[in-house]
Parts: sequence; structure tokens; C-alpha cells
Amino acid sequence: MERNDALARGVRERLGLSGVPAFNLVSSPGSGKTLLLERTLRDLGDELRIAVITGDVQTQNDADRIARWTQDLVQAVVTGGACHLDASQVTDALDAIDLDALDLVFIENVGNLVCPASWDLGETAKVVLFSVTEGEDKPLKYPKMFQKARYAVLNKIDLLPYVPFEVEKAKACAREVNPTIEFFLTSALTGEGLDVWYDFVRSQAKDSILAAGGVET
Amino acid sequence: MERNDALARGVRERLGLSGVPAFNLVSSPGSGKTLLLERTLRDLGDELRIAVITGDVQTQNDADRIARWTQDLVQAVVTGGACHLDASQVTDALDAIDLDALDLVFIENVGNLVCPASWDLGETAKVVLFSVTEGEDKPLKYPKMFQKARYAVLNKIDLLPYVPFEVEKAKACAREVNPTIEFFLTSALTGEGLDVWYDFVRSQAKDSILAAGGVET
Repeated sequence: MERNDALARGVRERLGLSGVPAFNLVSSPGSGKTLLLERTLRDLGDELRIAVITGDVQTQNDADRIARWTQDLVQAVVTGGACHLDASQVTDALDAIDLDALDLVFIENVGNLVCPASWDLGETAKVVLFSVTEGEDKPLKYPKMFQKARYAVLNKIDLLPYVPFEVEKAKACAREVNPTIEFFLTSALTGEGLDVWYDFVRSQAKDSILAAGGVET
Repeated sequence: MERNDALARGVRERLGLSGVPAFNLVSSPGSGKTLLLERTLRDLGDELRIAVITGDVQTQNDADRIARWTQDLVQAVVTGGACHLDASQVTDALDAIDLDALDLVFIENVGNLVCPASWDLGETAKVVLFSVTEGEDKPLKYPKMFQKARYAVLNKIDLLPYVPFEVEKAKACAREVNPTIEFFLTSALTGEGLDVWYDFVRSQAKDSILAAGGVET
């Protein structure tokens, strides 16, 4: 873990020097990380150069899906059973990416609300996804993840009419463990709410960030 | 891990001697383990004495929900950040349960499709839940869990009209990694499919199992 934290500091320095932010997407399996990334790449690909480092326990399914939408490198990491990405995998992935040509990096972590909370990848910020089918109390049951995340994406809002889920209750649960967490409400399937998410992504891209004083290191 | 496996053998022996089977429910966070247990306890509580050992990373939310439906002990384990239950926690829980008075035990594991696959709890069988909102390829992405599980519950089928999910494709993915896995299709919310699940639970309860030759050890 000490070695991981040292490598994470290295990643953070490289991101800082290049001015490119990296967002670490974490969630349960099936919350919609890959679809959110596919849509983001499709809809912002003409404006921004976005690289994705995607990690999965087995299979290249996520990488194959994402590769359809970006000409930039999809660095796929198969963890071979491990329950999270680590900073050495991100270090290796950055070695294979031309950071200076990019505007933003997404890291798609393994679907798991526990282990990835403990592993700093050197990311600029963690973005935790959860969906309206998962229950409002997820932030209380997995508090470490919601404490570590600066942003939360509540996804699958197109299913709200069909599930017993109160958005305000979920937000309150998240703010109980992290009062400053910032929410996005989206349906990566129907596109609802993605405009606000896209504005956020644009505001975080290299040029915007440099204008605002650089990536946090 | 060796110590865990030794303790798991001890748990399995105790279950075998008492003739009481124990099912280890594993899934992503938010797949509906707790609601399935609540319904099962409510609807079979007059016929069967069922104990539940429920584990969560933080909070007693699940234990509180289940305690409303069973007079038998709910042994709540808060793992304090650990991503799975282990056999020592189940050993301690069994010490606090009068096994001989019971027909069946459910163990509700931590919501995580990776880590609990590696930890034998001494259970009779693992039951993996996943939901129709999670994507059909979950069994391929988390193959170890689906290999280790004897049964799969595909939950939230009430949402099938609203999500792009093909049941047959999901079954095929599961059978690709585990050809003999047995499926239940349920909605713990609406009750659809629970009759078949209940018949299964009845068939696994102590008396049925003893008539069939005892718990597998």
C-alpha cells in the first residue's frame, strides 16, 4: 500500500505537469460506467480528446465497447481476479498514452463499492456512480467510497417511475457521509441529464483547467 | 486463507451434523438480497424456522430490515471495511444460534461480486443474485463468482419491459462459465417468480434434506 501511494503521487505529478485531469469512475457492477463513457466519448469526441483506462476482473468487454467511440488509446487492464485497479497499472497505462495530446482521462475501475475506495490511483478526483435501482442507502452502507468521491452520478433516472427510490433521500444519505459531494442525475440510456454532465466534463478538460490555474496536485 | 478454510470445514461439519443447510447469498450491492430475504421470511416464516446471518461493511440497515420478519436470531456482522464475510464470523454466529431448532440458515454476504467468491464460509451452497438492470454479461465479467455458485437468482424481472436486457443471453453467459448453474427468475418487489423460489427453499429445509440423505458435507 505504501508503494501504491508512492506510485499514485507519481501519477498525480504527471497529470499536474501535463495539465490533464483524470477521473476515477467507481461503482457497483452494472451501474452504467461503461455506457456513460460510451455516450460521453460519442458526444464530446469532436470537441475533446479523451483517453480511457478501463479495468476489469476478466474479459475485454468494456474495452471493446469503449474502443468503438475513441480513436485514442483504450488501455485495458484485466486484473485477473483482483477487486480494484492500483496505481502501478495506471502508471503503466500512462506510459502508453501521449498525455500531452489529451484533454482528459477517464479511469474505469473494477465494479466494486468496497476495495477501490482504499486504492489511490493518483486520480484528480473519484466519481462514484450508483443507480436508482440500488436503494437510497448505498452511501451509508459503503461510506468510505462516498467520502472519497468528490462527485456522484445517480444513473438510470429513466427507471424512477418504476422503482421505489427517492432522489432526495439518496442525496441526503450521501451528504451525511460527504457534505460537499456534488451530484449529477443522468440516464446514460436515454440521455436525460447528460447535458449537465457534459458541461462538467468540458469545464474539467485541459484548457479549462489550465485557465483556472491547473490540475490539483 | 488456510485458517479460513479450516474454519469453513468446521462450519460445514456442524451444518451436516445438525442437518441444517446454509445458503450464502452473494451479489453486487443493490441486487435485492435483503428484500428477497425479507419476503422469504415473511411468507415462509410460519412453515420454517429460518435464521439469517447478515454481514455489511457498515451500518445495521440490513439487519434491522430482516429483524422485522424473523423471531430467530439475526446475527449482524459489520465487517468494518472488509469486502467479504469470512468463516470465523460465521463460526461465531453459529455459536449464538440454536442450530438444532432451525430448518435453514441464510448468510447474506457483503455486496461485492469479487472478494466473496474466494472465501469459503462453510455454506452448503452459494446463491448468486444479479438483476436485470445490471447487464447480461455480468457472469462473464465476474466468472469466479458464477463458477462457485450452484444457484443464480435473476432479480427485478418486473423491470424487464424498461431495460435492454435479454434473459436468455444472461443465462447463456452464466452457463458459459458454469454449465450446471440453476436459475430462478424473481421480482422480490412484486413477488413474481417467488413461488418457485419458495418451493426450492422448502425442498432444501432440514426435514426435506434429511429425508433425502442429509446435508452435503
